[in-house]
Amino acid sequence: MQIEIQITSQRIAGNVSPPLADAGALAEFSGLVRGEEDGRTIAALEYEAYSPMAERVMREIIAELGERHPCLFVRVTHRIDVVPVGEAAIHIVTAARHRAEAFAMLTEFMHRLKQDVPIWKRRALTGDELDALKKS
Amino acid sequence: MQIEIQITSQRIAGNVSPPLADAGALAEFSGLVRGEEDGRTIAALEYEAYSPMAERVMREIIAELGERHPCLFVRVTHRIDVVPVGEAAIHIVTAARHRAEAFAMLTEFMHRLKQDVPIWKRRALTGDELDALKKS
Repeated sequence: MQIEIQITSQRIAGNVSPPLADAGALAEFSGLVRGEEDGRTIAALEYEAYSPMAERVMREIIAELGERHPCLFVRVTHRIDVVPVGEAAIHIVTAARHRAEAFAMLTEFMHRLKQDVPIWKRRALTGDELDALKKS
Repeated sequence: MQIEIQITSQRIAGNVSPPLADAGALAEFSGLVRGEEDGRTIAALEYEAYSPMAERVMREIIAELGERHPCLFVRVTHRIDVVPVGEAAIHIVTAARHRAEAFAMLTEFMHRLKQDVPIWKRRALTGDELDALKKS
C-alpha cells in the first residue's frame, strides 16, 4: 500500500491521478469549509497543526486500517492556515481492487482524523478579518 | 437535491465541479475496469444498458436514498459500450452539508446500482478482440 501524506498552506489541487494498475475502485473525499460555523456567517477557517506528529499519526492510522481494508494507494492532503469558504481543508483519495475497501478506508480514516490527529480549527474569520489578513 | 444522470459511450471526464453553495462534503467514486475478469486477462469490458429505464431507475433510487441521506447534489455518469481497462465505467459525485450523507448516498447507491439498474456487462474483450474492434 502506497501512502502519501501532505500538510500544506497551499490550495489543494485535488485530482492528481494515483498509480492505478490493478485498481477497480477509486474513491475521493473533500471536506470543504462551509459559510456557517456555530450559526455565524464566516468567510474562512484557520487551521493549525502539530505537523510532524500529525503526519506520523495519519500514516499510522492508514497502515492500521489497511490491515482490515487493504488498499493499493492512499493520499491525504490536509490544508492548514487560512482556508476560505468553499475550498477544501482536507482531501483524501483511496484506490483499491474493490470498492468496499476503498470506501471503508475513506470513511474510517475521516472518523479517526477527527479523533486522533493533532490538527485543529484555530478560529473562524469574518469577511472583514479575512480582508484585513489579505492586506497585511 | 439536484440530480444529474448520464449514460454515455464517451470516456468519462470526471471532475466537473458541481454547484457547491452550502456543501461541506464532496465525495466521488469511480469504478474502473480491471485487467482481470474471472481469472482471465482482459483488455476491455463491453457494457449494455436499457437506457431509458436505467436512467429512470437511477433517478428513483437517488430520490429514495435522499429522503434518508439528504444531499445537495448527485451526479451519476455510467459509460456503456466498450470500456478499456483502467478507464471508468461508472462515476458518481455527491455533495452534502456533512460527510455522513455524502458517504451514505455514494455507498448505498453503488449497492443498489448492481441490484436494480438494467445495465450489465455484455462481454469481456481480449486485447486481440479490442484491436479488431478498433480497426472495424
